[in-house]
Amino acid sequence: MSKTIAINAGSSTLKFKLFEMPSEKVIAEGVIERIGLKDSFVSIKYDGKKLKDTIQATDHEVAINYLLDQLIKLNIIKDFKEITGVGHRIVAGGEFFKDSVIIDDDVMEKIDELADYAPLHNPANLIGIKAFKKILPDITSVAVFDTSFHTTMPEENYLYSIPYEWYEKYGARKYGAHGTSHRYVSARAAEMLGKDLKDLKMITLHLGAGASITAIKDGKSFDTSMGFTPLAGITMATRSGDVDPSLIAWLEGKLNISSDEMIDTLNHKSGLTGLSGVSADMRDLEKVMDTNHRAKLARDIWINRVIRYIGQYVAEMDGLDVLVFTAGVGENDIEIRQSIADGLSFFGVGIDSDKNQIRGEERDLTADGATVKTLLVPTDEELMIARDVERLKK
Amino acid sequence: MSKTIAINAGSSTLKFKLFEMPSEKVIAEGVIERIGLKDSFVSIKYDGKKLKDTIQATDHEVAINYLLDQLIKLNIIKDFKEITGVGHRIVAGGEFFKDSVIIDDDVMEKIDELADYAPLHNPANLIGIKAFKKILPDITSVAVFDTSFHTTMPEENYLYSIPYEWYEKYGARKYGAHGTSHRYVSARAAEMLGKDLKDLKMITLHLGAGASITAIKDGKSFDTSMGFTPLAGITMATRSGDVDPSLIAWLEGKLNISSDEMIDTLNHKSGLTGLSGVSADMRDLEKVMDTNHRAKLARDIWINRVIRYIGQYVAEMDGLDVLVFTAGVGENDIEIRQSIADGLSFFGVGIDSDKNQIRGEERDLTADGATVKTLLVPTDEELMIARDVERLKK
Repeated sequence: MSKTIAINAGSSTLKFKLFEMPSEKVIAEGVIERIGLKDSFVSIKYDGKKLKDTIQATDHEVAINYLLDQLIKLNIIKDFKEITGVGHRIVAGGEFFKDSVIIDDDVMEKIDELADYAPLHNPANLIGIKAFKKILPDITSVAVFDTSFHTTMPEENYLYSIPYEWYEKYGARKYGAHGTSHRYVSARAAEMLGKDLKDLKMITLHLGAGASITAIKDGKSFDTSMGFTPLAGITMATRSGDVDPSLIAWLEGKLNISSDEMIDTLNHKSGLTGLSGVSADMRDLEKVMDTNHRAKLARDIWINRVIRYIGQYVAEMDGLDVLVFTAGVGENDIEIRQSIADGLSFFGVGIDSDKNQIRGEERDLTADGATVKTLLVPTDEELMIARDVERLKK
Repeated sequence: MSKTIAINAGSSTLKFKLFEMPSEKVIAEGVIERIGLKDSFVSIKYDGKKLKDTIQATDHEVAINYLLDQLIKLNIIKDFKEITGVGHRIVAGGEFFKDSVIIDDDVMEKIDELADYAPLHNPANLIGIKAFKKILPDITSVAVFDTSFHTTMPEENYLYSIPYEWYEKYGARKYGAHGTSHRYVSARAAEMLGKDLKDLKMITLHLGAGASITAIKDGKSFDTSMGFTPLAGITMATRSGDVDPSLIAWLEGKLNISSDEMIDTLNHKSGLTGLSGVSADMRDLEKVMDTNHRAKLARDIWINRVIRYIGQYVAEMDGLDVLVFTAGVGENDIEIRQSIADGLSFFGVGIDSDKNQIRGEERDLTADGATVKTLLVPTDEELMIARDVERLKK
């Protein structure tokens, strides 16, 4: 039996999950936050226990060294040789990476080039890759891209109606994100139904702080709500989703701010937080929405945008067989799931309010008589990453 | 019997239509183009005849003076006193004008203030109003706003997920456009079906060079595809419609152009023209699409965006009873109508290919067995304007 580690390096964070493969048993998981800042926070769960620590992780290499040391110290593994594979989540794979790949120098160079599309994420991902290569040079190292799953979109769905030369010269198109999550839950949903994914018209709702919706047809991503960047699409915790581009330019003039400042505000101070003025967290809004109009409004708009996108994709696929809820809000917010399903009765969607009394577990929520199956499938991007490592190792 | 004139003043154009009211008979109609430029072109149709002329219309007042002179010279009217009302189309009415109004000094001041939202159009509209007031000071003068019909949208549909303060302070929200057209065709469609508009869930497709889609519920505009400006929404002849705002900012950096230049390109060099590199006119694309990939692609994307928005609104209304085609492409492009309807069979849409062999005439196109009624209703914004003048005169 071998062990595989899935790594998700953000600009100042490092998340990991260690699996025993092929049993897919989780041996340990955790996160190191505030990398590069004073006092990085560590949290590791293993064998029913939990380690909390504060360290001085000046960069990702220090963080990874610390993490590997802890795996031995905490007796999670006895020898580094037990780890035979590592999978790295990479945000931007552009049009180039249509599947996960074994990482070599060419792949690293390409990930570096693609940093133009994800200036905060790809460089951090690359640091994670290099740190692992240095410490464990001989293990299989695999890159798993957020964008790969969406490279199957047809061009009429991924192109914007802007000068075509901007696509040819600059790669200005929709790439989408959360691909690993949409891939995981769509495959799992088909399994739960005992059907071949290829035979289903499916919409997967990844509804977390970042949120995206994907239409899946013929077993492939057919369209997705995030765009050139993860700013586009539905309302999110702090991101605006879609906005009339003219309004953005007009507001820059009114507010006398630069495009960069505007995009920063649209990414970090918009969405639920900008609308409500209360919180970016749906649970906080729900606590006060009976008395706070803007909190209720933010939630209503959030639901509206989810419903709009579902409608888009039902129309684009000219049908719907399966609807899947996943990620933080999708897995845990019972009322939100009910509201969304109630708004889609014309499509044949309906969930059973008793079955829906559940959080974070796989379940078929479909009401009697509904023609569309609605499932709750907790996402597991790390498991998908570990599976990709196994698949490519062979 | 009295006569009412409907005036549509663009930044360099003046369109008019003269009606006999209340019979609604069109006595004359025409357009003056290139106002303010050397050699303005005139075209007037009346009594089965047609006048073509070239004049030096240095401004809208000169154009209106010329037009009124011609009405007498061409024997269309004998005396200006026959004209008892004039209706002016105004682009931006903001949240203020929820219906058409009789124009007084306060109204003119407000239209001037609202020019912030339509810097090219409202000032031209105002020049038209003033020129008419000067020449025919005693007739009823009515302002008909493109935005009024959409002021009924609920706030979860018109707000963007941006800081709420930007709505409060700057009016940053969706206003929509083409309201007079959507209002006209929705009312007419209900009449044709012998139903009360209030009882129908309807989607009206105004598909011209500028194009917008409106969801109508309880007899009112419930949502519409154009946004803060007419740039947003579906792909148009030269406008992009929706684009990830982050992409816009990123491309400005790549191309080293200003926000203003970018918005100009998105308005005038995008859409069908930018995608195809061939033409902004759907007919031109259809002539070459069998051999020109980008021409076909532009048309496919255009159809895709129409279908996406229909889906959005079916979801938002949780139902659909009536689909209405109008404006240049919607009234005249038989194949486009067929393609759109064929892509929406899941919703119960279907058109009869024999009934669909028609251009520019009212007809119920619904196929046997389709549960959604699909109608062709040629738009008539000028008639709607003349009717508003009649209604407010009383």
